[in-house]
Amino acid sequence: MRNLTLLTDLYELTMGQGYFNEGRHEEIAVFDVFFRPNALITYSVAAGMAQVADYLEQLQFSEDDLAYLRSLGCFSEDFLAYLAHLRFTGDVVSVREGELVFPYEPILSVRAPMVQAQLVETAILTFVNHQTLIASKAAKIVDAAGGGVMEFGLRRAQGADAGIYGARAAMIGGCVGTSNVYAGKLFHVPVSGTMAHSWVMNFPTELEAFRAYARSFPENCLLLVDTYDTLKSGVPHAIEVFRELRAAGYEPKGIRLDSGDLAYLSKKAREMLDAAGFEHTVICASGDLDEYSIASLKEQGAKIDSWGVGTKLITSADLPALGGVYKLAAVFENGREIPKIKLSDTTEKITNPGVKDVYRLYDKKTGKAIADYITRGGETVDTSKPLELFHPVETWKRMKIENFSVRNLRTPLIVGGKRAAAEPPLSEHAAYFRSEKAKFWEEYTRRDMPHIYKVDLSPALYALKSEMVRAGKED
Amino acid sequence: MRNLTLLTDLYELTMGQGYFNEGRHEEIAVFDVFFRPNALITYSVAAGMAQVADYLEQLQFSEDDLAYLRSLGCFSEDFLAYLAHLRFTGDVVSVREGELVFPYEPILSVRAPMVQAQLVETAILTFVNHQTLIASKAAKIVDAAGGGVMEFGLRRAQGADAGIYGARAAMIGGCVGTSNVYAGKLFHVPVSGTMAHSWVMNFPTELEAFRAYARSFPENCLLLVDTYDTLKSGVPHAIEVFRELRAAGYEPKGIRLDSGDLAYLSKKAREMLDAAGFEHTVICASGDLDEYSIASLKEQGAKIDSWGVGTKLITSADLPALGGVYKLAAVFENGREIPKIKLSDTTEKITNPGVKDVYRLYDKKTGKAIADYITRGGETVDTSKPLELFHPVETWKRMKIENFSVRNLRTPLIVGGKRAAAEPPLSEHAAYFRSEKAKFWEEYTRRDMPHIYKVDLSPALYALKSEMVRAGKED
Repeated sequence: MRNLTLLTDLYELTMGQGYFNEGRHEEIAVFDVFFRPNALITYSVAAGMAQVADYLEQLQFSEDDLAYLRSLGCFSEDFLAYLAHLRFTGDVVSVREGELVFPYEPILSVRAPMVQAQLVETAILTFVNHQTLIASKAAKIVDAAGGGVMEFGLRRAQGADAGIYGARAAMIGGCVGTSNVYAGKLFHVPVSGTMAHSWVMNFPTELEAFRAYARSFPENCLLLVDTYDTLKSGVPHAIEVFRELRAAGYEPKGIRLDSGDLAYLSKKAREMLDAAGFEHTVICASGDLDEYSIASLKEQGAKIDSWGVGTKLITSADLPALGGVYKLAAVFENGREIPKIKLSDTTEKITNPGVKDVYRLYDKKTGKAIADYITRGGETVDTSKPLELFHPVETWKRMKIENFSVRNLRTPLIVGGKRAAAEPPLSEHAAYFRSEKAKFWEEYTRRDMPHIYKVDLSPALYALKSEMVRAGKED
Repeated sequence: MRNLTLLTDLYELTMGQGYFNEGRHEEIAVFDVFFRPNALITYSVAAGMAQVADYLEQLQFSEDDLAYLRSLGCFSEDFLAYLAHLRFTGDVVSVREGELVFPYEPILSVRAPMVQAQLVETAILTFVNHQTLIASKAAKIVDAAGGGVMEFGLRRAQGADAGIYGARAAMIGGCVGTSNVYAGKLFHVPVSGTMAHSWVMNFPTELEAFRAYARSFPENCLLLVDTYDTLKSGVPHAIEVFRELRAAGYEPKGIRLDSGDLAYLSKKAREMLDAAGFEHTVICASGDLDEYSIASLKEQGAKIDSWGVGTKLITSADLPALGGVYKLAAVFENGREIPKIKLSDTTEKITNPGVKDVYRLYDKKTGKAIADYITRGGETVDTSKPLELFHPVETWKRMKIENFSVRNLRTPLIVGGKRAAAEPPLSEHAAYFRSEKAKFWEEYTRRDMPHIYKVDLSPALYALKSEMVRAGKED
């Protein structure tokens, strides 16, 4: 594993030097990671926490790193010596990977000595922003397809990690496999792939190319049929080879369409395959797909069983960054919490101050999620009596709920610098997302114009925030 | 360095197994990397070739990799034994990093035994697509700003590599520094950064926060002035601290604006700084910038000296993938070249067949680039007599040029599996881009509605292509 200790913005280190000089480097601070709303994502699928944990556990400046920092000429020898012994010793609480998360709620919080807490900001945001973005995009695409989506985007990914961890995130969001062999090995997820156009071009005829492939993979024969002419050449040749395979005792897998009018071609190809007695073969489609084109193809009655989605998934093409932020929530002076707030003239940009907890409230009768509820740290939610929720800005919007259950959304990820629990297999995160998503009314998760899921504040947190905003404005 | 041998799509390996079974795995093939046109990029800035070379030089399946491939159940022991000894032994010719490149021209070509040439497709595309994309985006942003652009995007990058290699590419495209410390160390490029809002929030008052920073960094005091109120609080407090600094014998660096109306705020802040005798301080701006917002700010007369550009640069937000492809150009049978072509009903998607060279033609009088000229491999261009260029599709569009010089755009990157030359410092690639860009008329490189730079074919290449298209249509 690469040591990514220097994967940080320089200002994290200059601030570190500053705190060190002020004698405040060991002061405990709490920072929250949260997302702001955006027009394209109705809910997000949290991901990347495993990489956060890996990164924090191995945080350590090498001799080389320190020599480099020294060469910048802006750090003192005292501070460099301090960095030489620095490890991450703090605590991190976080939602699980696969958790559905919403704007403004702190999905991950870091509590650590100031220099550490500041240093790790950038990498934590990089990992969580990226993987949450791709998991969320995958979830939308899988929703549109109804399943059977494979991640095919490595060649268009923004570098190797974007391909590798993008594939990982795509699996959490519901993809069933990836073309990326590196990711397949690293995360133990299904890999898929058969042939490119170059294979077909590399034989004197399409038929010979298909026969050669069938010779090598009689049990997994899926043929790419659009190199020359899909319906006049590709599908008939595939059927010819499928007959030969069946005669030899093998059942063919199917065909892949990578260009042209996928709705029309898939319907015609399905008819041709069925008429030839290959009803059980699959039709896989690829080529610049996303949730919109897939939804459109399904609406047109396309006969497509599985979807290879590349560029637009692996880059989240219509929204290539999530914009998660890392904001100071509190510092501790002699063990006493001093809540911190970032003020702004834009109401939505004012942060929620202090140490917090995040609860998800469920209707006991339906089992469905009602709202998320942010409290001050350590507050509990009494489910034995009705709870009145109110909108955090338009406070006259109120709703009383009863007969509900509550779940603390966040659990310890890192305790005293060490993982709180071993990393489960990736498939567990994917399964968790599926099961939790089923607890949301479709009105909240649909792609177009969803209801806005409530993320409300407890009266105590609201009171603290109001008071701090008032005080701040008086300064 | 990580071994990225498995960073490939599964189909590269299933095709490898297929070629191996057919006894064709050592057949020599030539593949070309090129881009198709898109609406947003007028020219691209080639980048990522250093990573291609690193990757090819270290290509080697580990025991672990082979065990993983074996576990997939689709590869023969013979083939796995072949992979165990596989190294990249082929040749790669490529344009230099920093070269201005245009659609359809093969910017990099691989000539290698079939299994190798196929295996390396995915990673080569990943590296070249990503870095060329970001270098090109950076070039547009730097063009708009006229210089002084710093890359600040790590936290919004699509994973660690996107941040690291994106910073590298941004430097090739003309950025003057990055906030990314890892990239700074790896590529020996300037890093910059001072403080975040959390620093300011973490002191009882803004003034105390500024004073503390000035104590630690008297020689590099650049203050973030928008945490509370830029003009009423931030700038006056900065000026107060600047006066104290000057009294102590230090000259302050300047201020950073990260929100609000940057045009208005920068003009007012400039006036205030100048009036206080700090004419030499700089104003740095950041916050969701790109080439459009920078151009608009400059048009409004914003007094901004340097630009910190994050999300929209590091993700190339309006075009997050370049879509470069890797297409079979030729195979060799007994040393004889067999050109290959990919046909399509879309004329622009028909590939240029065969081994090729790419020349750039320059006007001897002005020194400016006239056109690029793709020939069959080994063709030379006679500069002693006039050359008639013609459009590769609309062939009646013709232009005769004379008094021109010619340069082969591509040089060996890898020869027999080894780097042809040591990797120069990154600054050389950036300098090369600057000098080469100066050889283009602005009409070709401007952001909006540029002239389309000509990429034409030699008569011999055009004849080969026409013949192959005709023959293909008759099949």
